[in-house]
Amino acid sequence: MRAAVVLLSGGIDSATTAAVAIDRGFDVSALTFRYGQRHVVELEAAERVAAALKIERRVVQSIDLRVYGGSALTDDLDVPMERDAGDRAGEIPITYVPARNTIFLAHALALAEVVGAFDVFIGVNAVDYSGYPDCRPEFIAKFAELANLATAAAVREEGRFEVHAPLIAMSKADIIREGVRLGVDYGLTHSCYAPTDSGLACGRCDSCAIRREGFVTVGIADPTRYA
Amino acid sequence: MRAAVVLLSGGIDSATTAAVAIDRGFDVSALTFRYGQRHVVELEAAERVAAALKIERRVVQSIDLRVYGGSALTDDLDVPMERDAGDRAGEIPITYVPARNTIFLAHALALAEVVGAFDVFIGVNAVDYSGYPDCRPEFIAKFAELANLATAAAVREEGRFEVHAPLIAMSKADIIREGVRLGVDYGLTHSCYAPTDSGLACGRCDSCAIRREGFVTVGIADPTRYA
Repeated sequence: MRAAVVLLSGGIDSATTAAVAIDRGFDVSALTFRYGQRHVVELEAAERVAAALKIERRVVQSIDLRVYGGSALTDDLDVPMERDAGDRAGEIPITYVPARNTIFLAHALALAEVVGAFDVFIGVNAVDYSGYPDCRPEFIAKFAELANLATAAAVREEGRFEVHAPLIAMSKADIIREGVRLGVDYGLTHSCYAPTDSGLACGRCDSCAIRREGFVTVGIADPTRYA
Repeated sequence: MRAAVVLLSGGIDSATTAAVAIDRGFDVSALTFRYGQRHVVELEAAERVAAALKIERRVVQSIDLRVYGGSALTDDLDVPMERDAGDRAGEIPITYVPARNTIFLAHALALAEVVGAFDVFIGVNAVDYSGYPDCRPEFIAKFAELANLATAAAVREEGRFEVHAPLIAMSKADIIREGVRLGVDYGLTHSCYAPTDSGLACGRCDSCAIRREGFVTVGIADPTRYA
């Protein structure tokens, strides 16, 4: 079995991405970040998802993106409620974290090299890349080019890194359909940017709104417990 | 003044790189990593160097590269003493840290975006890139291409990121000459991979050997206190 690293945040997209990687026959290592996010409850979701998918190698990396500032996800800025006009118009939302996917993929590359993987999976998708520059296909393709120059493994073994973004052209509804087909239990996942103290989803933030819409469109029950 | 981010480890190369950036007129922010390195004493050197160069914005990011394993700099592997045949033949030394420069540059990109910088300086050089894939010019050039796709700033402001590696084609002796010309106090810097408990350089590891050779070649006194 070929090894792969999957970036696993504990949300719908990364859970589905992990299931896709396993379905394609990869031996998956999961990499999760504790990065100063307000919605730290998603780390528990990542752990639940990894256990359900029988992913044995799980690595949690702690970095503190708050030292850089500049995002509602890590600073004391207000998380936007409902999808706002800026988001719909393709502007960059305030929940953008500077260079986050570059940082996450760079760390995935380190783990990939150590576990002997030449495949990295990331759950970026069409809904996100409306506003986030580092969710676009050209960014993903460029990172793969970089990876092929960056590591001892690529130099030593002539192996070729690939960055897989299987959800990149899918709507949230398509993603949920694919996950259901692969047996993903979305009740284990977490999407909310602004959960209650007890970890319940707010039901109102951007991320909750996209999630709700997805389940409605697919026509299956949303297993999320909202506040 | 244009803003720039300089990766500052506290060694000869990054201290010289910071001085070059300042000499070129940039308003420098310094980014230093606490990454599980054995030679944590270099963090104090970075602080001394930044203070001497009057760099006001200094950010320290803590990440733990030990969770990935695979390097003598972060694991309980022996640091090689003297430069060995493998290193000279262009093989990848055991002190290589998987994807380290990719990770460091990704973090620099985040800080650059927040401080409004489109220039990142990194002190990679010819001595290093004999063995480290992520010290080669083609890697640096590719990272710049990635940065220009990766950030909200690049999308929003049509600004162009540049990654500067001013030392990349310089020998250690050339680097020291340039630093001396710019007034760098190398007595503040730290190079050793295997310092004593009190922080003195061992004088025997790969990094000490390169440093010593550099001062001998230039013909100036090495200000380092060796064990």
